[in-house]
Amino acid sequence: MSCVFCAIVAGDAPAIRVYEDDDYLAILDIRPIVRGHVLVIPKAHTVDLTDTPPETVAAMMRIGQRIAKAARASELHADGNNVVLNDGKAAFQTVFHIHLHVAPRKTGDKLSFAKGLVVRRDPDREASGAILRDALAALDA
Amino acid sequence: MSCVFCAIVAGDAPAIRVYEDDDYLAILDIRPIVRGHVLVIPKAHTVDLTDTPPETVAAMMRIGQRIAKAARASELHADGNNVVLNDGKAAFQTVFHIHLHVAPRKTGDKLSFAKGLVVRRDPDREASGAILRDALAALDA
Repeated sequence: MSCVFCAIVAGDAPAIRVYEDDDYLAILDIRPIVRGHVLVIPKAHTVDLTDTPPETVAAMMRIGQRIAKAARASELHADGNNVVLNDGKAAFQTVFHIHLHVAPRKTGDKLSFAKGLVVRRDPDREASGAILRDALAALDA
Repeated sequence: MSCVFCAIVAGDAPAIRVYEDDDYLAILDIRPIVRGHVLVIPKAHTVDLTDTPPETVAAMMRIGQRIAKAARASELHADGNNVVLNDGKAAFQTVFHIHLHVAPRKTGDKLSFAKGLVVRRDPDREASGAILRDALAALDA
């Protein structure tokens, strides 16, 4: 299987899962720009905005919004979020299975955000995943 | 009226319109990162992902996808697009009426993209607007 996101969906590659339903999965980015950087992925493989059904793109965004709200409410104490879909290699897409980035941001983190574009690591990925899962569950409660 | 996007929606402030329906408006960013940089705006004023209904966010994304596809098909010859929602001041939101950025990208434009973060001008805004309107109309044809 040549698509890493399809392998994650199939359970053949590891990932820290933040959210899952029948059709979508949200996982932590293995090269996070900031702590709690999540990718929302449809389980069905499509490449980018040219071949993905509008309903799928809309559903990814709805899930992204929930994760953004959860990040604000969570122990990550996000003050905001960058929600980004990079459509095509020319737009910095690197995995060609469509995905939506949700990057929680904190006031005054601009320097670390810029540094994150280079460094891209999270010292405690398991904890970041648990924090976001808990915050999503709390949104429903 | 203190919200510039509400003023544009009301027709009290100028904008180059790319798309409009009963509930949404898409206009050219007055400080474009790249040529054809569009903002998708709901006509009803909300601030960010915390107060905007999920259906509105989903609809903004559907419109953003159509504009991204139009940019690829248009004379702008986009090879991809960055579709970005900056949720909150900490995430670089500067106008506090929610909006979705669609920034058409071309292969090899990385330098101009980075420069665009500083320069942010389009030498022919009217032409860029017309090109995108035509491409959207062609998507429907």
